[in-house]
Amino acid sequence: MNEAGDIPVEEFKRAATRAIDWIAHYFTHPEEYPVLARVKPGEVKAALAADAPRTGEPIDAVLDDYERIVVPGITHWNHPCFFAYFSITGSAPGILGELLSAALNVNSMLWQTSPAATELEELALDWLRQLLGLPEGFEGVIMDTASVSTLCAIAAARHALSDLEIRERGMSGRDDLPLLRLYTSEQAHSSVEKAALVLGIGKAGVRKIPTDAEFRMDASKLESAIAEDRAAGHRPFCVTATVGTTSTTSIDPVPEIAEICEREGIWLHVDAAYAGSAAIIPEYRHVLDGCEAATSIVVNPHKWLFTPIDCSAFYTTRPDVLTGAFSLVPEYLRTSVDGEIRNYMDWGVSLGRRFRALKLWMVLRCFGVDGIAGRLKAHIRLAEQFAGWVDEHPEFERLAPTPLSVVCFRARPQHLEPEGGKPNDAALNEFNEALLRRINAGGEVYLSHTSLDGRYALRLAIGNVRTTEKHVARAWEVIQQESTAAQR
Amino acid sequence: MNEAGDIPVEEFKRAATRAIDWIAHYFTHPEEYPVLARVKPGEVKAALAADAPRTGEPIDAVLDDYERIVVPGITHWNHPCFFAYFSITGSAPGILGELLSAALNVNSMLWQTSPAATELEELALDWLRQLLGLPEGFEGVIMDTASVSTLCAIAAARHALSDLEIRERGMSGRDDLPLLRLYTSEQAHSSVEKAALVLGIGKAGVRKIPTDAEFRMDASKLESAIAEDRAAGHRPFCVTATVGTTSTTSIDPVPEIAEICEREGIWLHVDAAYAGSAAIIPEYRHVLDGCEAATSIVVNPHKWLFTPIDCSAFYTTRPDVLTGAFSLVPEYLRTSVDGEIRNYMDWGVSLGRRFRALKLWMVLRCFGVDGIAGRLKAHIRLAEQFAGWVDEHPEFERLAPTPLSVVCFRARPQHLEPEGGKPNDAALNEFNEALLRRINAGGEVYLSHTSLDGRYALRLAIGNVRTTEKHVARAWEVIQQESTAAQR
Repeated sequence: MNEAGDIPVEEFKRAATRAIDWIAHYFTHPEEYPVLARVKPGEVKAALAADAPRTGEPIDAVLDDYERIVVPGITHWNHPCFFAYFSITGSAPGILGELLSAALNVNSMLWQTSPAATELEELALDWLRQLLGLPEGFEGVIMDTASVSTLCAIAAARHALSDLEIRERGMSGRDDLPLLRLYTSEQAHSSVEKAALVLGIGKAGVRKIPTDAEFRMDASKLESAIAEDRAAGHRPFCVTATVGTTSTTSIDPVPEIAEICEREGIWLHVDAAYAGSAAIIPEYRHVLDGCEAATSIVVNPHKWLFTPIDCSAFYTTRPDVLTGAFSLVPEYLRTSVDGEIRNYMDWGVSLGRRFRALKLWMVLRCFGVDGIAGRLKAHIRLAEQFAGWVDEHPEFERLAPTPLSVVCFRARPQHLEPEGGKPNDAALNEFNEALLRRINAGGEVYLSHTSLDGRYALRLAIGNVRTTEKHVARAWEVIQQESTAAQR
Repeated sequence: MNEAGDIPVEEFKRAATRAIDWIAHYFTHPEEYPVLARVKPGEVKAALAADAPRTGEPIDAVLDDYERIVVPGITHWNHPCFFAYFSITGSAPGILGELLSAALNVNSMLWQTSPAATELEELALDWLRQLLGLPEGFEGVIMDTASVSTLCAIAAARHALSDLEIRERGMSGRDDLPLLRLYTSEQAHSSVEKAALVLGIGKAGVRKIPTDAEFRMDASKLESAIAEDRAAGHRPFCVTATVGTTSTTSIDPVPEIAEICEREGIWLHVDAAYAGSAAIIPEYRHVLDGCEAATSIVVNPHKWLFTPIDCSAFYTTRPDVLTGAFSLVPEYLRTSVDGEIRNYMDWGVSLGRRFRALKLWMVLRCFGVDGIAGRLKAHIRLAEQFAGWVDEHPEFERLAPTPLSVVCFRARPQHLEPEGGKPNDAALNEFNEALLRRINAGGEVYLSHTSLDGRYALRLAIGNVRTTEKHVARAWEVIQQESTAAQR
């Protein structure tokens, strides 16, 4: 290592070649690793030096530790038997995009600080908008996560209440602010409530609308909640509907919700972080029905569009309100072209912005629209297949419909069946929780769980491009075996 | 391209090798490119396909377009003559960290979803804490940017006002909330005010304390502002001090400010995004004097610590309050080890989290503490040298002290000198603004600007590991030549 400059370029090339070879092997042999890391709390940290080195170390020594200590402590989201949360894919074109973007190391806060980064963001988002079937009025920006996209949407919805002058006057020290109400379903992601906490809406400002038997927001209850709140003097200002809830991938009735929002003059934000991508499949275009009337929508390419984390595509028909909520331009950030171009720093919280568009553009080009649709369809087919196996088995049951690539189910072992009458949920919950622990401890597959109407549900999510029928079948075998073993 | 799966691994290896070769050439020949992109608004977008392809394209075709269209539209932050904003470095070890992190594609929201990612984050941040000389009570988390770190700090400061119950009750629809006041200096970064807008503090809740002749917060004015606000029934709750302001890298008197905050029971957040790294140099440890008494502090390794964007290190002595403000744990995010480990999703806004610790750890190991300190010292020396040239030249003047690696100055050409009396700032501003445009249009160097006490200032920032005396000398030549030419 030199006293100045970066590490020598030849060393970089050698190390990069080693890293590429490691990745190539990893991608062709993901099954060499247990899906869920087997380390104990503190084990990784304890194996590594507690202090930074005085003098620089050779990069090979660092890569040795990476392979020897870091990798065994990794839970492998690339494993074809990773079925937890939302299963994802950081595909090869996306990884190359990240590599080049890290090398360019531009900050796309302003158009001028890298025109190509801003314009590729506009372009890739416009491609995606077309693929999702959203109308031209939707303008996009890439955020890191759906949590932040949703926060920005709700911040814009609050700013749209222009008579309240919240940007200027704030929300404290005044007695003229009605209670601001945000509506979302009981099945909505926790990020909606978190955004409300951050924005000062508070838990009191979030009204969770009950869902129907299939975990979709009950639009008539939304309507009456709004009417009730208006009668009480509150100020309804935003509805967040979900297309593809986290627990069951249920789809809120967006067309009806949009109609209510339209009539009430309320900002409609749609969280389609996971399921939005399904609209790329012509037969599944309907998942975004009604969203053409939304004010904003978020779809995460890092969820079900083969793009490495993080990449969240946020669209709004009111970029003027969004930038009105966020824009602050000190002198040191003014440029001579400000009137002619888009400065994305004005579109959200973060000033500094990575060049995330590159990977998205590379993924869309290398897979192509049909290639993407084909892979997503295959995931849905695998989930349907698994759901079928569950349905046919006398000792398992599904706990929710399977509209997309996630199956919620539980074991109902014979010995816990009551003699007629209702299932014993408390005992089943205990059994299934223990069952999940057994399944995941094996290391071959990794599932997560949720709770549905008080029932502990196992969740099998499909979303990795390496996952094939073989892997889903193996998961089903493991689940049955562990369930049998747990009954002994 | 296959109908299923990722792109074939051999194609990935070939493309990755091409990308690595391109990066190696780029890093050894950054001067082949103009620093500031020369494209016109819309030019990059117009050169690229307006629609996503139906079928996947070979990755080589995408890399061709990358080299042919994207790169010429890039403003080169890697160029040794990039002197704008804060000059940064995405060093080779950091790039390799990003590459591996993209390949692993883990979401470090929970310890269980990748123990090594969480523990490496704890470890790398603890290394950095030690290097910065912060006491053990500071616990860290990596955010994307200082904007978000500062937002989280102020959100935590608001949550610390436990009697106001803002998390539960929100800030609207109540008449018992005093005006919440946040204090920062007139020279603070715009992200402080942006955070206040997001949090519902509003512009009215931000009190900008005047600065002294050297652009540092006037602590006595802070003290009297707080007293005045208390007397008016307002509720002071947070002070954001800056170590290394964006315009001039001035350093607020943190020891005095900390004393005031301590006495008043107010959360002290320190924005040391750029300058904090200087504390790694033993002789510059003093830049963080007083910060041991802060409640939170942010230092950005992606600014002056050779780590690719984005990586913002946020520390607080009150992680309990931080997680109290943000934590929301729905059933689907519970794990069996929750009591024993740290789940970083509870430490901020975003649920999804990239494995950013890997690159930071690799940078710290490959450069070593002495290697880092040596490079930072070299940057400071170069800035001092440049400041000396400015000071010696009869037609230039510095407009601020140069405590670190940024020089603020302007041209004062003979023909604009008044016959005795005050300089003609309006004419000088116009001249210097035009001068900056000329300098940047040349393509050899890129500087940015600010405004100081109504004076248009050119800013020369040093922070790239490839920048040497040769580059700074060339910048000085270009500046003088253009100033002379502008007078013709």
